[in-house]
Amino acid sequence: MFKINVIGIGPGYKENMTGQAIEAINKSDVIVGYKTYIKLIENFLGGKEVVENGMKKEVDRCKRAIQISMENKEVSVVSSGDPGVYGMAGLILEILSKEHDIKQFDVRIIPGVTSSNAGGAILGAPLMHDYVTISLSDCLTEWNKIEKRIHCAGEGDFSVVIYNPKSKSRPDYLNKTQEILLDYKRPDTVVGIVKNAFREGQQTKITTLEKLHEAEVDMFTTVFIGNDSTYEHEGYMITPRGYSV
Amino acid sequence: MFKINVIGIGPGYKENMTGQAIEAINKSDVIVGYKTYIKLIENFLGGKEVVENGMKKEVDRCKRAIQISMENKEVSVVSSGDPGVYGMAGLILEILSKEHDIKQFDVRIIPGVTSSNAGGAILGAPLMHDYVTISLSDCLTEWNKIEKRIHCAGEGDFSVVIYNPKSKSRPDYLNKTQEILLDYKRPDTVVGIVKNAFREGQQTKITTLEKLHEAEVDMFTTVFIGNDSTYEHEGYMITPRGYSV
Repeated sequence: MFKINVIGIGPGYKENMTGQAIEAINKSDVIVGYKTYIKLIENFLGGKEVVENGMKKEVDRCKRAIQISMENKEVSVVSSGDPGVYGMAGLILEILSKEHDIKQFDVRIIPGVTSSNAGGAILGAPLMHDYVTISLSDCLTEWNKIEKRIHCAGEGDFSVVIYNPKSKSRPDYLNKTQEILLDYKRPDTVVGIVKNAFREGQQTKITTLEKLHEAEVDMFTTVFIGNDSTYEHEGYMITPRGYSV
Repeated sequence: MFKINVIGIGPGYKENMTGQAIEAINKSDVIVGYKTYIKLIENFLGGKEVVENGMKKEVDRCKRAIQISMENKEVSVVSSGDPGVYGMAGLILEILSKEHDIKQFDVRIIPGVTSSNAGGAILGAPLMHDYVTISLSDCLTEWNKIEKRIHCAGEGDFSVVIYNPKSKSRPDYLNKTQEILLDYKRPDTVVGIVKNAFREGQQTKITTLEKLHEAEVDMFTTVFIGNDSTYEHEGYMITPRGYSV
């Protein structure tokens, strides 16, 4: 069996990784990853062979990892957050299912703390009730599909977590999201914004849905939009579960 | 400042916890938690003072933790999975915001791997695209609100993660969920079921939406319902992100 681990490193830095993730990295021969994330964990990779590349090279990265595993080296593909949430787990499995005999591979997906949970913890407890996770990246998804989902998230009074809120090629998608959600949610709905959760340069801001367009966001930012009962108290964003308190 | 940590222990067992979570437990004077979860981590609590109680005693548990912190003991409230997802983070903050001066407390929420990510990793990659997290527990939420959200999740072609799929008092909610989603999703939509993710007695099953009513689920089970492009391959549940493979 060819051994591939797909590892969620969480927000980055060793203290946010699980023991299982650290152990898998330690026993791997080769580590493969996006260079920005390799940098976060490089201080404990020791002298290991590292294969890194840039953004939008995901397919190439996964194919190289699979090739390396077929040389009978144990390979770990690292993915920020959780590898199953807009990460590398799906792509590895897709390629194996379409181009290889997947039964020859021992694939281990090791979960990690995704941005919803990392950013949520920093804000307080914005996701204590049912929530939706939506990526605004249209690299791989048509905007009309994303738009439809935002409508449904608003209609259902879900808390909403926005991944990939902005990039050069789509500066106005977050504003469009704001406009759509204002059809369903109150203008004073609490919004929390977290940049670089648990990383250097961590920043947070609590604002409201009607002021969301004033917020500065980038690809390392996660946006949390409350449900109908979310409130702010002394800097904490809190969505009640429904207990009588 | 009175010190309270609210710690996500992930699926349980030390290897699934983050270093940050383990460190916080180690330096705490008192550990507070639901007895089932205390049991999962008891082997590394050493001789620490432990305050545990049963289900539906969440408010009592959090109030006791707050009282203990006010005796100038550092207290850690442990919560399975992520404390911000149907966990204890919100309740601690709610009680502090309503009954205390929250500025007197140093509250640290430490994220963990929630069931979506733990169970997802075991199934493969069911949540690679936008998804919804819904709890079927009506202890704290009216069923008509839950029902509305299931409709919206179906309408938006989200992958759906169901927490708390069944209990004695509501044996038919998962069947109702199935019926609603069949209005929007194909009968052969892939469904993955994970019981006791990363715990003793772990079980998985892959089935389809039309057969979901045949599945045996309990409160330690998480149900994953695919989106329109989710497929099954050799036991893996895979939701494509949209890369050309």
